[in-house]
Amino acid sequence: MDRYTKEELLALTPREYRRMCRSGEWTGETFGVCRGYAQTDLAIIPRKYAYDYLVFCHRNPRALSVVDITDVGSPHPPRLAPDADLRTDLPRYIVYQNGEIIDEPNDILKYWRDDLVGVLLGCSASFDWALRAANVEPRSNGVFSTNVPSVPSGIFYGRIAVSCRLFKNSYEAVRAVQISSRHLIVHGPPMHIGDPAFVGINDMSNPDLIHPYGDVTPRGPLPGEVAMFWPCSATNRLVAVDAKIPVMIVDHFRCMLVIDKRAEEVAIL
Amino acid sequence: MDRYTKEELLALTPREYRRMCRSGEWTGETFGVCRGYAQTDLAIIPRKYAYDYLVFCHRNPRALSVVDITDVGSPHPPRLAPDADLRTDLPRYIVYQNGEIIDEPNDILKYWRDDLVGVLLGCSASFDWALRAANVEPRSNGVFSTNVPSVPSGIFYGRIAVSCRLFKNSYEAVRAVQISSRHLIVHGPPMHIGDPAFVGINDMSNPDLIHPYGDVTPRGPLPGEVAMFWPCSATNRLVAVDAKIPVMIVDHFRCMLVIDKRAEEVAIL
Repeated sequence: MDRYTKEELLALTPREYRRMCRSGEWTGETFGVCRGYAQTDLAIIPRKYAYDYLVFCHRNPRALSVVDITDVGSPHPPRLAPDADLRTDLPRYIVYQNGEIIDEPNDILKYWRDDLVGVLLGCSASFDWALRAANVEPRSNGVFSTNVPSVPSGIFYGRIAVSCRLFKNSYEAVRAVQISSRHLIVHGPPMHIGDPAFVGINDMSNPDLIHPYGDVTPRGPLPGEVAMFWPCSATNRLVAVDAKIPVMIVDHFRCMLVIDKRAEEVAIL
Repeated sequence: MDRYTKEELLALTPREYRRMCRSGEWTGETFGVCRGYAQTDLAIIPRKYAYDYLVFCHRNPRALSVVDITDVGSPHPPRLAPDADLRTDLPRYIVYQNGEIIDEPNDILKYWRDDLVGVLLGCSASFDWALRAANVEPRSNGVFSTNVPSVPSGIFYGRIAVSCRLFKNSYEAVRAVQISSRHLIVHGPPMHIGDPAFVGINDMSNPDLIHPYGDVTPRGPLPGEVAMFWPCSATNRLVAVDAKIPVMIVDHFRCMLVIDKRAEEVAIL
């Protein structure tokens, strides 16, 4: 991956980038590629559980906002990236079996079955482009589980996960609420501002779900910084453990699907 | 219904109004009641078809935007009006059997079954409050079927229905795009501006799905007026005929469910 400069990675088209994932050339994270293009999280589940899962997403729409659904058995998301292959085009996956992680592979060809459905979910990596376009550049503080319960559906239940961003000051925090609110399909506005203990996060230096992206030393807010927390599709990782369905496959940490739509297109889908 | 003044109807709470529908006291349309509160369209279908139907809604999100889903067999929408009863709290219903209208009753108690699911869908009657709040007051021109195909899912397919509003001038039309775009969950922005023939509407004086509300003479735009067309949940009526599922129940013309959330709350759900 060192063959590419930072600028070359940003200039890749989603199709070029997905081909690099498909061939195995790229197995790293999806931050910093395909400037301006939206990325989605992924949940792959058997059709048998898909109705309850879709209802679960509807009942927790800011955490799990459905943006595309494959036909049963098809790995191609028809609306957002019809030529993408969900089995190979993410850099890395997590495979759960009965609630346990059994594999963290770079493709899921050997796990694919005719009864699987792929659900693409809005990812805040999308509105990060919009923040940057407005010169609002928070420090990433990773993804945490909270003590906030989701609204259950069938066997799906559990706590909401949140991504945390640290903003220089209130001015930038307010701008970020404005900007993310325009991106309602990719989580929309934050669900909490300020004291992390209020949503059950006791140690800001140690995100339990996904470590931060980029230079984040020190973790937790500096004096004057404002911490804001967005509902996050990593909620799926809590759900997969709790629901214990026979198979559920999700995107690995910071390894999303880059789709053919720009973040600003997804905002007005 | 003549017992109530216009202002008394506007001042009703959703709960009071739903009770009037439930008791049979109110069987008329839901425009002009419960000022500021959102209204939703309704599709009731057997669980057997509900997965394909939800996927259909996802693939046509501006026409059919899902805002709440009942548990299987429950007539109570948990998220938006938990004490509402979908069997009695709309003024009137249309009952389809194998694609044919078999009844247009004021309640559906006798059609209710343990395998039915209620899906609440965003309705533009919600953003009409926001238009009025901004002194943008279009003439209603009713609801038409178009020649624009929906994206199919399973047995669900068909053309998109649109509601048409006529705006005094471009200034008001632009304001209406801005305002309705804030209400993405209730259809969002118009899908077409201008020539109705472009979406297959050849006779603006004769809406084939729902007649206009209020004083609309003459129908079709006056000189200088701008016609705009919003995707509409009346798409369900085209779908019900085409899909021919054993039973599908939808809201009757202009007889929606008034929910406990204000239109502006639904905009940021």
